[in-house]
Amino acid sequence: MSNRWILSEYDVESAFQQPAPFLKTLKSHGLAVTHTRLIGGRRDGVELLTVNNGDFSFTTIPTRGMGIHQAKHGETRIGWTSPVEGPVHPRFVPLAEPSGLGWLDGMDELIVRCGLESNGAPEFDAETNRLKYPLHGRIANQPTEDVVVVVSEDGELCISGEVRETRFLCYNVALKTEIRTKSGENGFRIRDSIVNRSAQATTAQMLYHINLGAPILGEGASVVCPAVEICPRNDHAASGITDWSTYSGPTDGYQEQVYFMQFAGDENGQTSALLKNAAGDQGVSVHFNVKQLPCFSLWKYTAAEQDGYVTGLEPATNYPNPRSFEEKQGRVVQLAPGTSYDIDLALRFHPDTASVEAAEKAIVALTEGTEAKVHRMPQASWCS
Amino acid sequence: MSNRWILSEYDVESAFQQPAPFLKTLKSHGLAVTHTRLIGGRRDGVELLTVNNGDFSFTTIPTRGMGIHQAKHGETRIGWTSPVEGPVHPRFVPLAEPSGLGWLDGMDELIVRCGLESNGAPEFDAETNRLKYPLHGRIANQPTEDVVVVVSEDGELCISGEVRETRFLCYNVALKTEIRTKSGENGFRIRDSIVNRSAQATTAQMLYHINLGAPILGEGASVVCPAVEICPRNDHAASGITDWSTYSGPTDGYQEQVYFMQFAGDENGQTSALLKNAAGDQGVSVHFNVKQLPCFSLWKYTAAEQDGYVTGLEPATNYPNPRSFEEKQGRVVQLAPGTSYDIDLALRFHPDTASVEAAEKAIVALTEGTEAKVHRMPQASWCS
Amino acid sequence: MSNRWILSEYDVESAFQQPAPFLKTLKSHGLAVTHTRLIGGRRDGVELLTVNNGDFSFTTIPTRGMGIHQAKHGETRIGWTSPVEGPVHPRFVPLAEPSGLGWLDGMDELIVRCGLESNGAPEFDAETNRLKYPLHGRIANQPTEDVVVVVSEDGELCISGEVRETRFLCYNVALKTEIRTKSGENGFRIRDSIVNRSAQATTAQMLYHINLGAPILGEGASVVCPAVEICPRNDHAASGITDWSTYSGPTDGYQEQVYFMQFAGDENGQTSALLKNAAGDQGVSVHFNVKQLPCFSLWKYTAAEQDGYVTGLEPATNYPNPRSFEEKQGRVVQLAPGTSYDIDLALRFHPDTASVEAAEKAIVALTEGTEAKVHRMPQASWCS
Repeated sequence: MSNRWILSEYDVESAFQQPAPFLKTLKSHGLAVTHTRLIGGRRDGVELLTVNNGDFSFTTIPTRGMGIHQAKHGETRIGWTSPVEGPVHPRFVPLAEPSGLGWLDGMDELIVRCGLESNGAPEFDAETNRLKYPLHGRIANQPTEDVVVVVSEDGELCISGEVRETRFLCYNVALKTEIRTKSGENGFRIRDSIVNRSAQATTAQMLYHINLGAPILGEGASVVCPAVEICPRNDHAASGITDWSTYSGPTDGYQEQVYFMQFAGDENGQTSALLKNAAGDQGVSVHFNVKQLPCFSLWKYTAAEQDGYVTGLEPATNYPNPRSFEEKQGRVVQLAPGTSYDIDLALRFHPDTASVEAAEKAIVALTEGTEAKVHRMPQASWCS
Repeated sequence: MSNRWILSEYDVESAFQQPAPFLKTLKSHGLAVTHTRLIGGRRDGVELLTVNNGDFSFTTIPTRGMGIHQAKHGETRIGWTSPVEGPVHPRFVPLAEPSGLGWLDGMDELIVRCGLESNGAPEFDAETNRLKYPLHGRIANQPTEDVVVVVSEDGELCISGEVRETRFLCYNVALKTEIRTKSGENGFRIRDSIVNRSAQATTAQMLYHINLGAPILGEGASVVCPAVEICPRNDHAASGITDWSTYSGPTDGYQEQVYFMQFAGDENGQTSALLKNAAGDQGVSVHFNVKQLPCFSLWKYTAAEQDGYVTGLEPATNYPNPRSFEEKQGRVVQLAPGTSYDIDLALRFHPDTASVEAAEKAIVALTEGTEAKVHRMPQASWCS
Repeated sequence: MSNRWILSEYDVESAFQQPAPFLKTLKSHGLAVTHTRLIGGRRDGVELLTVNNGDFSFTTIPTRGMGIHQAKHGETRIGWTSPVEGPVHPRFVPLAEPSGLGWLDGMDELIVRCGLESNGAPEFDAETNRLKYPLHGRIANQPTEDVVVVVSEDGELCISGEVRETRFLCYNVALKTEIRTKSGENGFRIRDSIVNRSAQATTAQMLYHINLGAPILGEGASVVCPAVEICPRNDHAASGITDWSTYSGPTDGYQEQVYFMQFAGDENGQTSALLKNAAGDQGVSVHFNVKQLPCFSLWKYTAAEQDGYVTGLEPATNYPNPRSFEEKQGRVVQLAPGTSYDIDLALRFHPDTASVEAAEKAIVALTEGTEAKVHRMPQASWCS
C-alpha cells in the first residue's frame, strides 16, 4: 500500500529506506519520518524513528520498547539531560544483575514504560535472597517487533509495533503500541494494549515514567495535578509535603522525593497533569484516564544538572512499590486468557501563556470545590 | 577452493555472498544455501543458514550455537510454534539471571543443544544460594566461530563450525559440529565433537532437545521408542504413565510430563525413535547411538497452541537433573586433556505410510521379544 | 579539519572510511590506521582500530573500553594467546553473572583496564550473598564514546575516546583516554583521566592488566622490577617466593602465583618494569609513575600453552583484593565533584640486546644500593 512502510524486514534496504509512494503520501500531509541506526558506544545498534509534523518533532526507539527519547517544539527541548547520555542499547543494560538495579544504566528517555510483569522497586525472594523482580521491569529494554508506519487518508501518522515479554512456560504478555500525531499537532497520542498472549490467566503492571527537565523545569516551576488524595512515599518525602507542587533549581545533593496521588477525572475518567515553567509561558501536559491508570506518582529529583535535574509525572496501574506489596493491595491488572488492557496517553506541549492557562484551567475544573486530602505521613496501604 | 564458502570473515561481502565457483558447484548438485542476517526486534543481528536440497530444507543458526531452527518438506513444517517467536539473539537471553531460567526466553528451535558444562534443571550453591548452573547450559546461546560450507565431489553439503564455552582459568570445551545433507535426502545428519581444548581433564554433558509440534504432533499422534526401561520423572508424570506413548490434542492448562528411558540399540548401538501422526502417514525419526547418548527423555507438553503445543525427543549423555545429581550417578562425560567425545545424530522425515511403517518396524525390531520395564513411580537413581 | 577523523557518527560511511585529507596527512607522516568491524562468532560487531607506525603496530578495541588487543614489531607478536580467542564482544561477557566471574569470558588482551568502580576479586554482600563487585569491574567491557583520531603537525597520532561507567543515581565516572604513537616509535603512550562526572564526591580504582606470553615469555625469561618491598599474595605464592622474578616454560597444571610490590621511582616518581626473554635480546617494558599507580602486582601463570601461558605486569592504584578490603587500607582514589585523576602509562618493545640492557640498567639504577624487603609470607595489610 502506498501509505505504509514496514520496517522489520529481512532486507536492510527496505528497513531503512522509505518506499517512494509512502514518502510522497507523507510529504503531501506535511509530515516527515526517518529511521536510523546509531553507531558506536553504548548506543551502537539502536534504531530510532524520528517524526516531524511541522513545529513539533519526537523520536521513538524501537530498540528500547518504543519509548519516547525526546521531543522538540521549535528550539525547545522536551525531555531531560540524563547522565546516562543514551539512548543505550539494551545489551548494555544488565537487567539480570543480582542487585536488580541494572535498569538505571539505560534510564534516559522522556517516556519510559515500566512493566509488564512488574514495575517499581526491585524485589528479592525472601528465602534465597535471589532477585525476583528487577527495578521497573523488562519492557523498556525489549526491542519492538513488527514495526510499521502508516499515514491515514486524513494525514494522521501512526507508528505501531509489538514489544513482547515472553518466557516459555512462565509468562507471555505483549505491549501493542500505536503512536499517533498529525501535521501541526503540538504533541502525540499513545494507545497501548497489554495483551495476554497465553491460554492461561495472568497479571501485569504498567507505569509511564514521563521525565521532564530544563527548560520547562526550573526554579519556580510547578506541577498542577487534579489530586483528591496525596501521600508522601517515605519520611523524607513527608518532610517536603507542603512544597510538593513546586520546584527548586538544581541543588547539589538533593535526595529524591516521591508523592503518591489519586486523581479526579471527568465523567469519562479523563484527566491530566501539567508541568509549567516559572513564567507560566511554557508547559507540558500529560493526558490519561483514571479508569485505566488509577495511580499517579510525582517524582522530584532536582539534583545538580550533571546528576540529571528532572521531575517525573508517572501515571500507572499501581504505585512503584515491590510487586508483591502491590499485589496484596489489589493493584495489579488481571488478564484473562486472550484478553487485553487498553491505555490511552497523550503528551502536549504548551508554547505560550494562553495555552498553559487553558491546560491549567481544565485541570483545576476537575476538582472544583473540593480540597485534596493531603497525608502528612506515609500510609500503610500506599507505601511498602 | 571452488567447493568452499568461508563465512566468518572480516569482510561483510564475502560473509553474505557466495563465491561464484562455489555457487556453481552447489547448483550442479541440486543444492542451495543462503546466509542472511535478520533485522529488528529480538532477532536483530541473528545469522541464518538455510539449506535446500530439493523437497527438503532446513535452517541452522550460527548465532545460536548452530541449532536447527526449523525444517520443511514440501509444505509440511517440521518444528513447532514456540510462544517465543524467535530466533532470539543471545543478547536477549539472560542466561546469567539469578533465577537460572533465562534460557527459556530463547527456547524456540527444532533442535536445541543443551550443555556443555551442564544441562538440566538449574542448580544453586547450597551455602550462598547463588546460581551455579543455569537451566540447560550455555551452548545454545553461544555464537559459532569459523563457519564454512563445503560441497563434496559426490554432492554432499557440509556446514561446519565451532561453538566454544571458554572461561579463562575455569572451562574450555568446544562443540565442533558438522551438518550434512544430500540432494533428495529427507533430512540431515549431524556429527558433533565435544572437544576438551585444555591441558587439564574436564567433564561435559550434552542433551539434544528435539522439539516437534503440529502437524505431525496432534491428537492421536504417538511416539515409538525401543525402550528397555521407562521411569516417570515425578509424581505428575507417574500419573500419566500408562499413556506415555500417545498424545492428546492441545489442552488448556496441561502440565508437562517427562519420562526417562533407556533404549535398546543394534549390535553397534544404533537406535532411533519415531513420532508419527494419528493417520500414520507422516512422521519424524531421530537416529543416534546408545553408546554415545545412553539416556533418553521424552517430554510431553501438549498445552494450548499459543502456549507451545509440543513434544521433545531428547537423547542425551544424562538425564536433565541438576548437574551435581547426575555427576553422583556417573552421568557426565569425562574428557582427558585434548580428547573429544563424538556424537552422531540424524533426523529423517517420513512423508508417507510406507516410510512411517518402515521406520517403526526398524524400531520394534530392536526390542523384539522383550518387554520394557516400566516403573510406576520415580526411581531414586534416575530422578533428583 | 584535515588532520581529524571522527568515528562515532550516525553515518556508517564516515565511521569506517577515513576522510581523504586526513588520510593524506596520515601518510605524509608514515602512519596508517584502519577501522574495522568484525563479523561472526563472539567477536561479531567488535570494532577495531589498528595503527601502524612503520615497524610497530598495535590494535585498540573501542568496543572493549579501548583496551589494547595486541601489538607487533616486525614478526614478533607482543601479547599472548588466550584460550578465549577474542576479541569478545561485551554482550558475550556476563559481568552480571551471580558468580562475579563472567569477566573471564572476555579475558584476551595485551592491556586490559580493570576498574572503575572496583577491580580485584569479586565481592559479595555479607548478608544477602548477592554480588556487589564483579571481578575486575566493568570498564573493560564498556564501549567507547566519541572516538576521534588526530594527527598533530609533528606527526604524532592520537586516538581519543571516553568510556563511561554511568548508573543513574548511583555512579558516574568516565575514563577519558588518549593513545599516542609516532612514526618509528617502538611502542605507544597512554594518558588516561578518571573523571568524576557527578556533582557528588566519589571513589574509583584502576589496574592495568598487561599480559605477555610467547615469544618474549619463555623458559628462562625474567622480570626486572625496581621493587622496594615484595609480598606473596597467598601461601601458594609464598612457596615460590625465591623464584619470583624468573619463569619456567609452559607447565601442565601450573597454579597462578601473584606477588604484590612497591616500586621505587625517580625524583618525579617515574618508574618501569621489564620482561625480557631468556637470551636477553628481546623485551617489553612498561613505564608509569608511582605517584599515580603506587601498587604493582606481578601475576605468573605459566600454564600449558593452550591454557594461556602468560604473565601479567599490573601497575595499579591498589592491590586486586576485594573492594572493601582495599578501601579499609585507604587504597581507593578519592574524586571530588568534577575532578579527575590522571595516569600516564607507556609500553615499549626492545628488539635487541642493547635496548634490553639499557631498559634494565635504568630500572636497576632506581634501587641502586638498596635491597628489596622480601616478605616470606602474606602480610595482613596487603592481602585480604
